[in-house]
Amino acid sequence: MSAQKIGFVGLGAMGTAMARNLVNAGYDVSVYNRTRSRADEFAKEGGTVAGTPAAAASGGIVFTMLADDRALESAVLGDGGIAMGLPRGGIHVSVSTIGVACSKRLAAAHAERGQHYVTAPVFGRPVAAAAAKLFFVTAGAAEPLERVRPILERLGHQIFVVGEAPEQANLVKLSGNFLITCVIEGLAEVFTLVGKAGIEHAQMLEILTNTLFGAPVYNTYGNLIVSGKFTPPGFALPLGLKDNRLLLEAADTLEVPLPFANVVRDRFLTALATGHGGEDWAAFAQVVAAQAGTEPFAG
Amino acid sequence: MSAQKIGFVGLGAMGTAMARNLVNAGYDVSVYNRTRSRADEFAKEGGTVAGTPAAAASGGIVFTMLADDRALESAVLGDGGIAMGLPRGGIHVSVSTIGVACSKRLAAAHAERGQHYVTAPVFGRPVAAAAAKLFFVTAGAAEPLERVRPILERLGHQIFVVGEAPEQANLVKLSGNFLITCVIEGLAEVFTLVGKAGIEHAQMLEILTNTLFGAPVYNTYGNLIVSGKFTPPGFALPLGLKDNRLLLEAADTLEVPLPFANVVRDRFLTALATGHGGEDWAAFAQVVAAQAGTEPFAG
Amino acid sequence: MSAQKIGFVGLGAMGTAMARNLVNAGYDVSVYNRTRSRADEFAKEGGTVAGTPAAAASGGIVFTMLADDRALESAVLGDGGIAMGLPRGGIHVSVSTIGVACSKRLAAAHAERGQHYVTAPVFGRPVAAAAAKLFFVTAGAAEPLERVRPILERLGHQIFVVGEAPEQANLVKLSGNFLITCVIEGLAEVFTLVGKAGIEHAQMLEILTNTLFGAPVYNTYGNLIVSGKFTPPGFALPLGLKDNRLLLEAADTLEVPLPFANVVRDRFLTALATGHGGEDWAAFAQVVAAQAGTEPFAG
Amino acid sequence: MSAQKIGFVGLGAMGTAMARNLVNAGYDVSVYNRTRSRADEFAKEGGTVAGTPAAAASGGIVFTMLADDRALESAVLGDGGIAMGLPRGGIHVSVSTIGVACSKRLAAAHAERGQHYVTAPVFGRPVAAAAAKLFFVTAGAAEPLERVRPILERLGHQIFVVGEAPEQANLVKLSGNFLITCVIEGLAEVFTLVGKAGIEHAQMLEILTNTLFGAPVYNTYGNLIVSGKFTPPGFALPLGLKDNRLLLEAADTLEVPLPFANVVRDRFLTALATGHGGEDWAAFAQVVAAQAGTEPFAG
Repeated sequence: MSAQKIGFVGLGAMGTAMARNLVNAGYDVSVYNRTRSRADEFAKEGGTVAGTPAAAASGGIVFTMLADDRALESAVLGDGGIAMGLPRGGIHVSVSTIGVACSKRLAAAHAERGQHYVTAPVFGRPVAAAAAKLFFVTAGAAEPLERVRPILERLGHQIFVVGEAPEQANLVKLSGNFLITCVIEGLAEVFTLVGKAGIEHAQMLEILTNTLFGAPVYNTYGNLIVSGKFTPPGFALPLGLKDNRLLLEAADTLEVPLPFANVVRDRFLTALATGHGGEDWAAFAQVVAAQAGTEPFAG
Repeated sequence: MSAQKIGFVGLGAMGTAMARNLVNAGYDVSVYNRTRSRADEFAKEGGTVAGTPAAAASGGIVFTMLADDRALESAVLGDGGIAMGLPRGGIHVSVSTIGVACSKRLAAAHAERGQHYVTAPVFGRPVAAAAAKLFFVTAGAAEPLERVRPILERLGHQIFVVGEAPEQANLVKLSGNFLITCVIEGLAEVFTLVGKAGIEHAQMLEILTNTLFGAPVYNTYGNLIVSGKFTPPGFALPLGLKDNRLLLEAADTLEVPLPFANVVRDRFLTALATGHGGEDWAAFAQVVAAQAGTEPFAG
Repeated sequence: MSAQKIGFVGLGAMGTAMARNLVNAGYDVSVYNRTRSRADEFAKEGGTVAGTPAAAASGGIVFTMLADDRALESAVLGDGGIAMGLPRGGIHVSVSTIGVACSKRLAAAHAERGQHYVTAPVFGRPVAAAAAKLFFVTAGAAEPLERVRPILERLGHQIFVVGEAPEQANLVKLSGNFLITCVIEGLAEVFTLVGKAGIEHAQMLEILTNTLFGAPVYNTYGNLIVSGKFTPPGFALPLGLKDNRLLLEAADTLEVPLPFANVVRDRFLTALATGHGGEDWAAFAQVVAAQAGTEPFAG
Repeated sequence: MSAQKIGFVGLGAMGTAMARNLVNAGYDVSVYNRTRSRADEFAKEGGTVAGTPAAAASGGIVFTMLADDRALESAVLGDGGIAMGLPRGGIHVSVSTIGVACSKRLAAAHAERGQHYVTAPVFGRPVAAAAAKLFFVTAGAAEPLERVRPILERLGHQIFVVGEAPEQANLVKLSGNFLITCVIEGLAEVFTLVGKAGIEHAQMLEILTNTLFGAPVYNTYGNLIVSGKFTPPGFALPLGLKDNRLLLEAADTLEVPLPFANVVRDRFLTALATGHGGEDWAAFAQVVAAQAGTEPFAG
């Protein structure tokens, strides 16, 4: 019996780790990447190179892991796009962090063609992707979701289903990223405040994580801020702003004021305007310090 | 050898649990409470009743666990106050959540009289106090802190020393409470947003606590908000506003802008102005819901 | 000598008043409106009805006064759009309040076809339009701007030229509308505050306008808020939100944090979510009152 | 018939100008200033020097024009204070910008002694004071207010009565100052935004003041910001923060959220923390520019 065919579009750090795990799990993986050399490089480990997203999708199941709404819409609806190559009844699994409006447009475009569209945005960084320890928040029709579940289980260790409308999972993902920025801002405000009163940032963090705040998000971002090591970026600041923008756009449509998201938005804008665009998104903590007239965070 | 004498001023829920643990640990505890009947009640379990804070302090070590700056300053500097009864070289251990400015005034008042003043504000709710599982953040001169450490160890299971200026521990405590309010606000914004998109609050919380946000603060306050059970209050909303006010006051003195604290301040004010004053401080989540035109949180 | 031909696309309250003044000034006006009956109605007073925006533009100069970016882009770039009918060297004068990004796209589209595109967004309400007392903020290349100046002078009494990039005038217009919302918010906060202290709103306004704040914007919006008469809307609340959104979008591109605009954005969202969508944009003042637990503004 | 006696406490720039006008109007003015040399200097022009506030108040009517709550409370309730020297039935006219809580305390203190206390905070800068063109917002009991009205009429050209509770006038004054800061922030945001798009600040201001925003507050503060000339301060930045603090304190008591005031508070704090403490309060506009990564305002 031949292996199931899976297309994979987008070989960034996350996508590469996920596609590799699919190869290792025995799937027949067809990869597409806009910069072809990465796909060629990948094919050395297994898998085949597709000339277009449409070709990658021809086997009936295709994953996309792309940088933003525009890249995804282009890969789906552009020339040689997924929508042109995915068979009727096939499934597009969108793993990227994208906007609610974009997800609705893709859902409509696929439905017109008798194709399935499900979303499974991912929580986790490249190291978790490599270890197949990702979390997936999924949404979409039940049947295609069940069909792709065994595949997702090879990539991560927990799968949540939040609803039947694909964009629901995107909203959950954007909300999760938003709460991370709330932690960054909260910690930056507190570190700046207690630092001016002569208390060590690292000790403040230790107290927090030993009491009520003992979660990975406080450990990860707390240490990042305390160390002030924002390069190379784990998640680039402009991408953080992009997700904030998508969240605020969704909130606008749903008529929900989000004052914390506004504060974070302004931090990102100042961070970009004052030269932190090449750093990790947590680097907006430096803006918090600057506005209190204190030295930048540094270990 | 007779037991060490310890005074304890303030028999609210937290104070009573702590004083009881001191009795159980074999100390000779002298309690004072403004409403005397509580002290009399307590004395049935052990300990003796002091007629004034000064009398409670006469043994050389006195703890205070009072509602706010005013109550504490009155118990220390008023007629029959601790400052009048504590011997030279004695130690006042302030366990309450109070303001930085108040703490500085008390430090000065005790220093004038040759008395020690240390702060040990506590992280934990009454149930943790009863179980002697509190966390203490302490500050003050090293020698008196070392003297009281064995006592604190009977009340909690971790003790942090943040500096030699007593008000430093107060600032850390206020900062911790502030970060709790940031979690409440962040969750309330997210629940309101995803709720309007048809996603269950409880499921959103489950996703968060199973991924990056698995800390007690998210579990405790997340479930509180999801359930909408804000009465009886675990920590009363007006006390939450009080701590927010003290934080902003300290930030003013230190010249640190805290935009998240401003957002929370406004939530508390609207909560009070719209009838939530008798609820738990997490009830300001209802204001978040109301401003998006959605139903109040309710299980 | 025959009269100069001018096309006019968009016969809302503002557009109708402006087109009528052009007719009265002796121009040969060709009007287009999506709902044709309004154009037919208008033609009874003079002017002719064009079947498409392209037809309206065929004389070489065309004005557009439309509700939003989408309506304008459709009228310019859609089937039978202005871009198809305006001769090379012709001028499109965009009088609408539109976004910076949209304006850039239109500028590029016209340039490709050898057409001129200038912007002249207008300050003033329908009554000022009828009286030819509008203010125009214009931007674009000097030559076409000079050509349309005599026409604008028949419609308003002051013309500002802010730059050669057409979108600059759009940004100025959005900024002006933003400052109006700042006045609404500021007054609403102050009226609510002093009202709770027993001071009459109307008297507070009188003091303000008699001292430092004697400008039309305080008179107009101050009286509107004090009276609480938000229907029928002079400028509909959803249009106010639209302009706020365009401002924040421009600020995002330019990397400028605008905290006041964030506050206003949240007011608009709550106003929509709580039933004020059919009222004047100043009705977000009711949200300010509600958040302080006070009665809505009412005369 | 001998001239009416009036005491005047506080000879800053404003106080000196007002006291001089009282002398010129023929009153028998007795001045007190903490730094006595200023009083001696003043007495060369007329008036007599009082050794204490109490002595200045002995004639039955005394004005106070002092820097802040503390200075005023000390001058009234301290040793040799006004409360000790003002006869029963005498009137203390507090002209300073002070807090609501402080004003209530003074009202109570005077009432205990059978003295009148009225408030008449002033709108206007020293040049208006010199020209007797101030505006007074007054509050208090009707009878003493009527008695001092003829005096106020020699100092200003308009007198508003807002209520019988003296602190009401203080709240109105704080609200007026708050609205000025709203104008500063709004203009600074807009200038920064349009400046980044290549539009001249001065032209933006011209457009605003020629259309809807033609009020002294926009002219004065708009030109101040455009010029970037913040020294010497017309009104010192720390005093601006003081008034903001008093406003927020009053709003806390009245349970009114004021998000614009929060934004301004943070501006003041950053301005202080980054070296603008010696400049005019409008200098917080520099913080707005800095957060967008642009050059400071400069003519």
